[in-house]
Amino acid sequence: MKISQLAERSGVPVATVKFYIREGMLPRGEAMSATSAQYGDDHLSRLRLIAALADVRGLPLSRVRDILALIDSPTGEPIDILGHAVGALPPYVDGDRDDYPRARAAIAELGLTYDPGFTAVAQLDEALRAVEGAGLDASPAVLRRYSDAMRRVAAEEVAPVAGMTVDEAVPYAVLGTALYEPVMLALRRLAHHHLLVERGEG
Amino acid sequence: MKISQLAERSGVPVATVKFYIREGMLPRGEAMSATSAQYGDDHLSRLRLIAALADVRGLPLSRVRDILALIDSPTGEPIDILGHAVGALPPYVDGDRDDYPRARAAIAELGLTYDPGFTAVAQLDEALRAVEGAGLDASPAVLRRYSDAMRRVAAEEVAPVAGMTVDEAVPYAVLGTALYEPVMLALRRLAHHHLLVERGEG
Repeated sequence: MKISQLAERSGVPVATVKFYIREGMLPRGEAMSATSAQYGDDHLSRLRLIAALADVRGLPLSRVRDILALIDSPTGEPIDILGHAVGALPPYVDGDRDDYPRARAAIAELGLTYDPGFTAVAQLDEALRAVEGAGLDASPAVLRRYSDAMRRVAAEEVAPVAGMTVDEAVPYAVLGTALYEPVMLALRRLAHHHLLVERGEG
Repeated sequence: MKISQLAERSGVPVATVKFYIREGMLPRGEAMSATSAQYGDDHLSRLRLIAALADVRGLPLSRVRDILALIDSPTGEPIDILGHAVGALPPYVDGDRDDYPRARAAIAELGLTYDPGFTAVAQLDEALRAVEGAGLDASPAVLRRYSDAMRRVAAEEVAPVAGMTVDEAVPYAVLGTALYEPVMLALRRLAHHHLLVERGEG
């Protein structure tokens, strides 16, 4: 297809498509003449992926590039790939500290793994600081509520990975981490709303 | 306490404290002389709340102001307050459409309430567009995984509201929606990490 069709089918404007090509995020099309190139379904899915991360998920371009790099060259241990993926996602925190006491205490309480080099530890620490700062409950009972739910979800998410090749598992894990998060948060908000409607408080 | 002590105890720089006062987000201190004012614990908790929303949660100032307004004047039906709170949170989407077909289908499938005027419907629609755009699974089985987890969480969250006054329930609901989200997402990331460590893939 032509670049105009690629733009139309992806919903991404032609100027933006050209920008992604210049930035090396999207491969060039196959040159047909000096002024026209041909694009295939691979271009379309790549473009949809970039749009999902940049436009819908709202990630900065540098982070989209990080995520594309992980998917394009799936090398390293799974745990390192997960670490890079999580580091490319908000909240963007200071991950260079040696110790995260709030997260450390919570993680010990919840029986998770405390590894200060894994960015989610710093992210949890910051999140708990906000909860405390706002005077909300960050007691073990409340944390366990969220942790239990997330461990069940995570176990189901990780299960299919055993049957995947590395080339399948990396995009599944990296994109799944990034793109199911907004789904989950919207569903929590909808569940609150639904409970109020059910109680006739709507 | 003096403004310098308020700054120190809250971790918010003096210049920023003054800015919040000028913007009407933080009340003025009690004037002691032409050049000094006295601040109390109320100022400190208000400042910690603003910092939690603005610095830690990373909300734009206009949205922090929206959330403070909800807490300061808790009027209206619970469902409207929830609607305003959710509208003040990212992802910021086009909430003016008449119909959100992806969200509508998912919500029907999951037995939730479809109300296109509630912002989380538009947020779910966008989130599902990203999931599909990236070629990830948005089948009913996968959506149900997230929805089941979020409904359990939401039911536990909503339960204590029955015993609260409106003045207690509004900050609980508004801040709880905003500030437990990053906790939950960090815990999901940590659960993935923990599962990999347990499987010896670390």
